[in-house]
Amino acid sequence: MCPRRSQAGLLLRAALAAFVLVGLSASGARAQSGGPPVTEFTLANGLHAVVIPDTRAPVVTHMVWYKVGAADEPPGKSGIAHFLEHLMFKGTAKHPMGVFSRAVAGMGGQENAFTTQDYTAFFQRVPRDKLGEVMEFEADRMTGLVLTDDIVKPELQVVLEEYNMRVANVPGARLGEQIDAALYLNHPYGKPTIGWRHEIESLTRDDALRFYQRFYTPNNAVVVVAGDVDPAEVRRLVEATYGKVAKRAEIGPRHRPQEPPPRAIRSLIYSDPRVEQPRLQREYIVPSYNTAGSGEAEALQVLAHLLGGGTNSRLYQTLVVDKKIALDASAWYTGSMLDDSQFGVDGRPRPGVSLPQFEAAIDDSIAGFLASDIPADELERAKTKMIANAVYARDSQATLARWYGTALTTGRTVADVQSWPARIRNVTAQAVHAAALKWLDKKRSVTGYLIKDTTQQQAKREKRS
Amino acid sequence: MCPRRSQAGLLLRAALAAFVLVGLSASGARAQSGGPPVTEFTLANGLHAVVIPDTRAPVVTHMVWYKVGAADEPPGKSGIAHFLEHLMFKGTAKHPMGVFSRAVAGMGGQENAFTTQDYTAFFQRVPRDKLGEVMEFEADRMTGLVLTDDIVKPELQVVLEEYNMRVANVPGARLGEQIDAALYLNHPYGKPTIGWRHEIESLTRDDALRFYQRFYTPNNAVVVVAGDVDPAEVRRLVEATYGKVAKRAEIGPRHRPQEPPPRAIRSLIYSDPRVEQPRLQREYIVPSYNTAGSGEAEALQVLAHLLGGGTNSRLYQTLVVDKKIALDASAWYTGSMLDDSQFGVDGRPRPGVSLPQFEAAIDDSIAGFLASDIPADELERAKTKMIANAVYARDSQATLARWYGTALTTGRTVADVQSWPARIRNVTAQAVHAAALKWLDKKRSVTGYLIKDTTQQQAKREKRS
Repeated sequence: MCPRRSQAGLLLRAALAAFVLVGLSASGARAQSGGPPVTEFTLANGLHAVVIPDTRAPVVTHMVWYKVGAADEPPGKSGIAHFLEHLMFKGTAKHPMGVFSRAVAGMGGQENAFTTQDYTAFFQRVPRDKLGEVMEFEADRMTGLVLTDDIVKPELQVVLEEYNMRVANVPGARLGEQIDAALYLNHPYGKPTIGWRHEIESLTRDDALRFYQRFYTPNNAVVVVAGDVDPAEVRRLVEATYGKVAKRAEIGPRHRPQEPPPRAIRSLIYSDPRVEQPRLQREYIVPSYNTAGSGEAEALQVLAHLLGGGTNSRLYQTLVVDKKIALDASAWYTGSMLDDSQFGVDGRPRPGVSLPQFEAAIDDSIAGFLASDIPADELERAKTKMIANAVYARDSQATLARWYGTALTTGRTVADVQSWPARIRNVTAQAVHAAALKWLDKKRSVTGYLIKDTTQQQAKREKRS
Repeated sequence: MCPRRSQAGLLLRAALAAFVLVGLSASGARAQSGGPPVTEFTLANGLHAVVIPDTRAPVVTHMVWYKVGAADEPPGKSGIAHFLEHLMFKGTAKHPMGVFSRAVAGMGGQENAFTTQDYTAFFQRVPRDKLGEVMEFEADRMTGLVLTDDIVKPELQVVLEEYNMRVANVPGARLGEQIDAALYLNHPYGKPTIGWRHEIESLTRDDALRFYQRFYTPNNAVVVVAGDVDPAEVRRLVEATYGKVAKRAEIGPRHRPQEPPPRAIRSLIYSDPRVEQPRLQREYIVPSYNTAGSGEAEALQVLAHLLGGGTNSRLYQTLVVDKKIALDASAWYTGSMLDDSQFGVDGRPRPGVSLPQFEAAIDDSIAGFLASDIPADELERAKTKMIANAVYARDSQATLARWYGTALTTGRTVADVQSWPARIRNVTAQAVHAAALKWLDKKRSVTGYLIKDTTQQQAKREKRS
């Protein structure tokens, strides 16, 4: 029913690595250049709101973020967070199915939603004079959702189709699913955000309503408004809409089962007949911005950029340019998570280079990085590039709003978002080396090989011969 | 406080592979030879009881089994099933701490207890005229347990010491823990029965009492009595003791989160400075007696015996005797589990043979087994040996009682125990081959290498040089 929405939901994790995690506060930049400040406030019912001035166009991005994601699902109910995201478009007593979406379309606006391990968010981009109207709709569905089996059952089929499209038919996605499952031995991040198919299949209306009633309550929500708006007027609108929603559950601290110390070097091979190009992906469990010691997450983020952030990075230069054994190679850090997150390395070897040879070359590159000093100009270029990327990214109002929403639902503050450029600027070569030495320990990792499964073709050939 | 008890608890999984899983009903054998039959009955409060005649000595083995184990623990509370097993020895309002144990010792009896993923059991072996007395004690602690922080906190230290002794200081146990965790992506069998250390550390009196109140109720218990007893008299005693315990919770069906289809060939390396001899252990997820299709579990059990059950088995003969590349090699099947269980292969290569070489030789052996017919006499010898082992094992009254207790807490019946020899006898070579082909698929498996960690020694050498 809402393909764009669903797409956003599932692609978000990759997208986060690319741009939300950059984490620069545009307002921070603005504040430096004298622009209006970001403001925030909390209502009596516990709802937290943030207003980000952005006066470039007469539009506003309105988001509501719930501090609940796949990692908060009950055992055996994987996929319920994402399924509920879908069901939130099914209408309320006051606004039956389709009314909200048609209203947004009628305003010339856009809407979307997404689910991750840590949060679920809904947003609209509309002309600024429509802000109060979308808030009223959004506040209404925080509490008034109406679900019947007639609605829930067909939507489950939509989600299963989405599963087919995004996981079952995408060997690279399946590789990632298997790596995550092998990486986390105890923490729910090992479960896919979309859920395990056999569990999705058995989700019910009652499961969705229970999850909704437990987690979709104002004291578990953050409203983010970015645009050409007056903060005082936004506050008035928030009070008049969300302010009327009664708190309907107490939300305790978000304690998920944590990981035991990682002890074994793990690897896996996923083979699929549809693979055209073998691929290697490795993930290490590392601290997130929320769980790291002072400066460690920033050092990991700089490390990811130096090692594998683009064609000037060490892995790319060594493996693709110099040794000519890879088609591509990159590294990434998913620091915007509530609990311990991942540092990743991936790439595709050139034809003729085996995955074990490729893996050995990656290990050599990392060892080489650790064994030599990081030239000061290389480090400065990397940090400048990261901060500049973030400045460019704020060209998207939605990105701007997402930085704050992500931070505020994963244990961080407005101040954390705003201090990000300065914290990146402060990362030293020593800190990057120390982070690499401490966290890129293979005992913390799973290395996955994606290879072509030739048994079917072979079976066919044998049958013919 | 109870070292033997704890030992039994933690060693049970291995022990099960060796003898409980054999599953022969001595009474079945007796029934064939005209001995008295096994009887069973259920009380009004839901308690299930089984009486196994065994007249060889004037002693009785009395066990109470609860249908709850580590796989039933709430998220984040791993270890609570085993911890509660310990706390069950801390006394009740009626019989303060030590009274029950002293009474058993005073009878010249023995007591013990054990926890697995699927059940928790307590037992006493006493003169037959003391049966009523131990039943009264056991029924009393089904409902009257008294726990204070003064008792709970020191016992937690005992459990943590046990953890050190049995897991932290035993590299082979750690290897098994890591393999299980990598094997199960979603099912709680991936969590160690003793728990993750960081979760054990935070268990509280309230956690224990909640678990106790939820699961230690007569409708979730099976009493097993084996010995020189009159079934009618046992029934009278059970009614007079356990019959007075009120049902205090409804126990729904035991639905744990199930596994997604296994898709990736997984492997891991666990290194430890204390390893003297490298070792390989592989586990495949396979059906248990409770989850298998008709005859499949029996075929898997015969397969384990043919492949790796003793020195006449294929793996031993090929790897140890013929190729002389291994010190030992064996295979096992843990079929007595409620949900999908494991088929295992393990062994130690001779010095000079690498683990990858050893693994390749194991794979060759399995492939060779699949590629050739199983000689009829080899199959018959194996089945005869398995059935004979079970007949010998019933020499232990406790083993006899355990067969029934295990079956009745993992989805099977008295009749299943009794028909086991006939079902093993019916396994064909075709069924064994089919089981091997279907279930010994490496995508279903994790292969673990246990190797010596030499980094510390190396670091020391480098420091000296």
